[in-house]
Amino acid sequence: MSSQHPHPLRELTESEILVAREVIIQHVGSSDAIFFRTIHLNEPAKDELLPFLQAEHDGTLTDQTPRPARLAFVEYDKIQAGRVEFTQAKVDVQLKKLLSSNAVKPSAQPAFTVAEINALQDICMSSQMFKDAMSEFSLPEGFDITVDPWPYGGPEETETLTRTMQGLVFGVDTTSGNKDSNHYAYPIPIIPVVNWDTKEMIRVDRLATGGSGDGLTAELRGDTPKALFRSPRTAEYVPELIDIPQRTDLKPLNVIQPEGPSFRAHSDGLVEWQKWRFRLSFTFREGAVLHDICYENRPIMYRLSFSEMTVPYGDPRPPYHRKQAFDLGDVGVGRAANNLELGCDCLGAIHYFDSLLVGPDGMPSPAKSVVCLHEQDNGILWKHTNFRTSRAAVTRNRELVVQFIVTLANYEYVFAYKFDLAGAIAIETRATGIMSVVAIDEGKSSDYGNVVGPGILAQNHQHIFAIRMDPCMDSYSADATAVVVEESHPRKIEPKTNPFGNLYGIHRTEVKHATWIDAEPRLNRAIRVENRDKTNPISGKRVGYKLIAPATQLMLADPESTMAMRARFARHNYWVTGYRDGELWAAGEFTNQSRVDEGGVSDMVERGDWFGPEQPETNGQGGGHGRKSSPVVWAVFGLTHNPRVEDWPVMPAEIHQVHFRPADFSTSNPALDVPSSRNKTSVLVPCCDQRDQVANGKNHVQQDPASHLQGDGADASASQAGAQVNGKERSG
Amino acid sequence: MSSQHPHPLRELTESEILVAREVIIQHVGSSDAIFFRTIHLNEPAKDELLPFLQAEHDGTLTDQTPRPARLAFVEYDKIQAGRVEFTQAKVDVQLKKLLSSNAVKPSAQPAFTVAEINALQDICMSSQMFKDAMSEFSLPEGFDITVDPWPYGGPEETETLTRTMQGLVFGVDTTSGNKDSNHYAYPIPIIPVVNWDTKEMIRVDRLATGGSGDGLTAELRGDTPKALFRSPRTAEYVPELIDIPQRTDLKPLNVIQPEGPSFRAHSDGLVEWQKWRFRLSFTFREGAVLHDICYENRPIMYRLSFSEMTVPYGDPRPPYHRKQAFDLGDVGVGRAANNLELGCDCLGAIHYFDSLLVGPDGMPSPAKSVVCLHEQDNGILWKHTNFRTSRAAVTRNRELVVQFIVTLANYEYVFAYKFDLAGAIAIETRATGIMSVVAIDEGKSSDYGNVVGPGILAQNHQHIFAIRMDPCMDSYSADATAVVVEESHPRKIEPKTNPFGNLYGIHRTEVKHATWIDAEPRLNRAIRVENRDKTNPISGKRVGYKLIAPATQLMLADPESTMAMRARFARHNYWVTGYRDGELWAAGEFTNQSRVDEGGVSDMVERGDWFGPEQPETNGQGGGHGRKSSPVVWAVFGLTHNPRVEDWPVMPAEIHQVHFRPADFSTSNPALDVPSSRNKTSVLVPCCDQRDQVANGKNHVQQDPASHLQGDGADASASQAGAQVNGKERSG
Repeated sequence: MSSQHPHPLRELTESEILVAREVIIQHVGSSDAIFFRTIHLNEPAKDELLPFLQAEHDGTLTDQTPRPARLAFVEYDKIQAGRVEFTQAKVDVQLKKLLSSNAVKPSAQPAFTVAEINALQDICMSSQMFKDAMSEFSLPEGFDITVDPWPYGGPEETETLTRTMQGLVFGVDTTSGNKDSNHYAYPIPIIPVVNWDTKEMIRVDRLATGGSGDGLTAELRGDTPKALFRSPRTAEYVPELIDIPQRTDLKPLNVIQPEGPSFRAHSDGLVEWQKWRFRLSFTFREGAVLHDICYENRPIMYRLSFSEMTVPYGDPRPPYHRKQAFDLGDVGVGRAANNLELGCDCLGAIHYFDSLLVGPDGMPSPAKSVVCLHEQDNGILWKHTNFRTSRAAVTRNRELVVQFIVTLANYEYVFAYKFDLAGAIAIETRATGIMSVVAIDEGKSSDYGNVVGPGILAQNHQHIFAIRMDPCMDSYSADATAVVVEESHPRKIEPKTNPFGNLYGIHRTEVKHATWIDAEPRLNRAIRVENRDKTNPISGKRVGYKLIAPATQLMLADPESTMAMRARFARHNYWVTGYRDGELWAAGEFTNQSRVDEGGVSDMVERGDWFGPEQPETNGQGGGHGRKSSPVVWAVFGLTHNPRVEDWPVMPAEIHQVHFRPADFSTSNPALDVPSSRNKTSVLVPCCDQRDQVANGKNHVQQDPASHLQGDGADASASQAGAQVNGKERSG
Repeated sequence: MSSQHPHPLRELTESEILVAREVIIQHVGSSDAIFFRTIHLNEPAKDELLPFLQAEHDGTLTDQTPRPARLAFVEYDKIQAGRVEFTQAKVDVQLKKLLSSNAVKPSAQPAFTVAEINALQDICMSSQMFKDAMSEFSLPEGFDITVDPWPYGGPEETETLTRTMQGLVFGVDTTSGNKDSNHYAYPIPIIPVVNWDTKEMIRVDRLATGGSGDGLTAELRGDTPKALFRSPRTAEYVPELIDIPQRTDLKPLNVIQPEGPSFRAHSDGLVEWQKWRFRLSFTFREGAVLHDICYENRPIMYRLSFSEMTVPYGDPRPPYHRKQAFDLGDVGVGRAANNLELGCDCLGAIHYFDSLLVGPDGMPSPAKSVVCLHEQDNGILWKHTNFRTSRAAVTRNRELVVQFIVTLANYEYVFAYKFDLAGAIAIETRATGIMSVVAIDEGKSSDYGNVVGPGILAQNHQHIFAIRMDPCMDSYSADATAVVVEESHPRKIEPKTNPFGNLYGIHRTEVKHATWIDAEPRLNRAIRVENRDKTNPISGKRVGYKLIAPATQLMLADPESTMAMRARFARHNYWVTGYRDGELWAAGEFTNQSRVDEGGVSDMVERGDWFGPEQPETNGQGGGHGRKSSPVVWAVFGLTHNPRVEDWPVMPAEIHQVHFRPADFSTSNPALDVPSSRNKTSVLVPCCDQRDQVANGKNHVQQDPASHLQGDGADASASQAGAQVNGKERSG
């Protein structure tokens, strides 16, 4: 594809961003009056893009093929006479033309930018109100203070909806001179609250520090000792500061790909690997997004993304009732993405994707190595041993991993899309990093969390994720995709149909209009995504995929609570909604300071879009009253995190996976053609008592001839073979 | 430890087996009259072993420490005057003395031995009744027939309980001359049923081959075409026979451990790795069993094993109501274990364990490389990036894997115990291999399964596993371990305690007597195993571990059906029972031809054993009426397998994991001391369009200096660096 015609799904280039910026500055009349929030690709309307993708995959694409216009979506604050007007605009970057520019209603609070987040600490430090609050505490010598930015959460009904940010305050032990000393060990029980329009301190909230039975209110902070940190606290995690020696007995494990990776990553975001083909883009809010995922050149998914995550805390003491983050909507996980480093976040042959964000001045800002692409081995994919001949055929489960890692102040998430050799996709989340902790009077314990260090309370909380799947099952026709709920039901003994009671029935219910669905492991409930017009030539059943998300606990907060009302997506495990351009957000577009989510999946269901050739009967709850549409599937899952001491000071990853596997999509196991070859670099390890014999020249250990240096990775094998002698140093 | 004193948990040695054999032959009076089934270690009574383990871990073990006697458990058939008497005996192999020898009640059918399994084909082939049945079918030229052995399943109440085996019959395409041609493509609709005592054919069952709506009974086999295999069937899986080319674009991925593995495997079964220490043994029924699992020299698990698995089929047409395998009880997964081969079943530096089984003559028979031990990388273990300094600390999730793989005729299971660096154990099952299929008239489809090839019906079925966990939480005292059910409960808004509705409550219920527990993801139900006397010095809570098993569907068959009655363990997700020596079997000791399981977890619960210092109130259902005991925990999970076309001819592995994680067991993250070091052999992969530039000498790609050949794995890195040039051949 020539550079005159960038692919319609390609992220905006640097020059396109500059064009959009210039158009907005011209429109407003002055760059001084503009605080840019984002400039990114306004993805084409689906109706326009589908014919293009069809032509692309048919191989009929020419310079004459109609292409969707290249549009930039721009969000900015217009600041005039102290008045801040949050504005959304669309710019045609080829025509260099403003298409629309609209002030958004004042109650809508956009996500915080990096510049906003970084400003909080200085605002606090220069505030007399904050200084006065801090003066009540005497910090140990050599201690400084620092403020972690946090979204304000859902305000109470009596509050006015000024744009607001709050901060969590910590002591910093500067005595080591090491800037990476873990300040989360020293929570200080105040929360500064800042009016973000005026950058002035509204108030400083006082936090209760009592334990079980001490009641809810902040007045109890009278218990708080003026000398805050009585016990020595060892909560360090960087190696040079922790007071236990590093392990020396974990030997290196290297992944070597002597012929390079099996994938092809193109500079425009196209990725090809093992019958898979998809386009990768990166947005400030969602991080890595996958488009037009095809298997064997058959489309499966129009768009796949992480849509939202909410983290509600279960401590009822005010102001913790507002301690609830929406990490995508309040900030954006793309903005929070780590710049990945070779040899740290994955092993082997790694490709890194860069992206562009924008600064407050609208200038493109490089986001270096924010997504990595690599292959990994995940054990056995399939095996069969013929017991008559003892011949084993076995293949390995190679995976292609698209990974990005985000830091939201204290916490980390590792997000990954994993593709396998048998046509399946796994969508993975790992929760790690440092828990958000608060002060508790030393010696007390709490019903609201677990004491993980002296004076440190890790509150009970949940992480609830929403993944958005916009399928196009084996067709670029918007009408082709159907969603079916499949269940396996027990049957009672019945003389004619089930005389011995072993029959069970597979129940299928087609989803005819937007709805939610809950997990039900007792019925083995799964969501099938099918093509309503194409059948598998072997089974005669519709071609499709099956979605299996973990059946995890949903939102615990009272459905009437603000926490629950802001995240109505977290009430059900699955949602099926009617497609509309630009609707990507499970909890709505604007989550910051929301009281009830607006435009999220819950609202989408209520409008009653319907699927299929014929309008269904309405169900009395709005279903079927809306527009004919194609189904979008949302999977909701997460973890209820009642902290363990083992999660401190940094948490071993908690892993969840959602699986999307072919189900009568192909005519046989798609991995049947994976070579069942023997890895030539694996080596045999004898018992450690036998290793001594090796060292003494009495090697009775069987050695596999294949480990001797032929073929791939011979050099590596040579160095590995030394293991058997090196073992001696550790035995006896 | 001197060889005069083998560890009490060490498997029987060759010479110990020979002693036991000789004692039994002496006892019976003639070796001719004996068919040996098994000779293996009779594990010591727990009461005797616990003080020994305590001394071993205290470092106070001497030659004077009392040791449990070394006992062999021997099962054999005594055959006299055509009468077969199945007998169980115990032999003291040090004293060379028979301790007991008891005939087992005739209704108890022991597991089939390999010799028995291998005998079926010849019995069928020499049976006139079988030949007559086969003569109704005309096989294509070049086709042979073969018979797969199957347990008989649960007999009907009208049947006499002779020891019985049945077979599934298949055509074999011999035209290729390749013995590994997949005969499962050619099911023949008869089942020979053999009286195993007389080795005579009882009858040949006819199988229905109809589709949906054709009714249940075998009389419908009139539909069966005499020429069975009309369409060409390509169900091959060995590379040289499949008719699609093997992939050539999957580049090698090697795991290289230049300094060898981090584990130490001792010849007596002791394994040490990264604060873990356990003993491995291998039994014919369970495969790999782990004993005395300790973390930082603190005991966690006295014994960990796979206890049972049942595979009930959902096709109601007789005789499929008896199609139900108990793969541990009917045969034994140790007996069915593959002899693993280097470079096939895992990557890197591998240790293999051998074991011994016994032949019909009681002679030890080597079981070579039946368990493998290796390390693998599983992504990120923990990470935190300080957003103020951009310093990232990140560690990798290294795992130690104990793996064995079994073949049960058509089907394979990969079983693994996985240990991690943060004190957690994962118990993993992978289901793979070839599905058990039956004939269906070509062109028909069925409600009872899916057509996966022309004329081939893969019936709906379930795989339900039971894992047995015998914990000893941080103590070798039998009284110390407690089991607690933990749940997270929503709370309604309430002005005093929950004014904003965000509170949730953690509910703990101690298990006071034997019981079952069902999974309940809506309440985040988890099982905690705790030490009732020791508290974590940080949190003040009991030290313990948390068990999380997947919430999967339970037995679908009608509870009144024989299938369900034989496997009552499959009715609930967890069982907690009172420990008794030798009780290892979720569905009872004898599963072959059982009608109701006897002595399984269901019976164990009914006898009402209780835990803790004081006898609890009885619950009216027997709970609390039994003996004081220590709790054994059983986790039940599995998959309802409604076959996909993609599962044919060999099935991509379906993976399940049970997790056992420390919960306030340690005083911080146990993996805090894992070095956050950079892997030096990882290499950067440019875009494939940029790779051309590399080849043309225009390399603008940033290269990480760390990838250049210093330190560990330098040779490997050198060969890997070539990736960037090799890439050229595949681009453009």
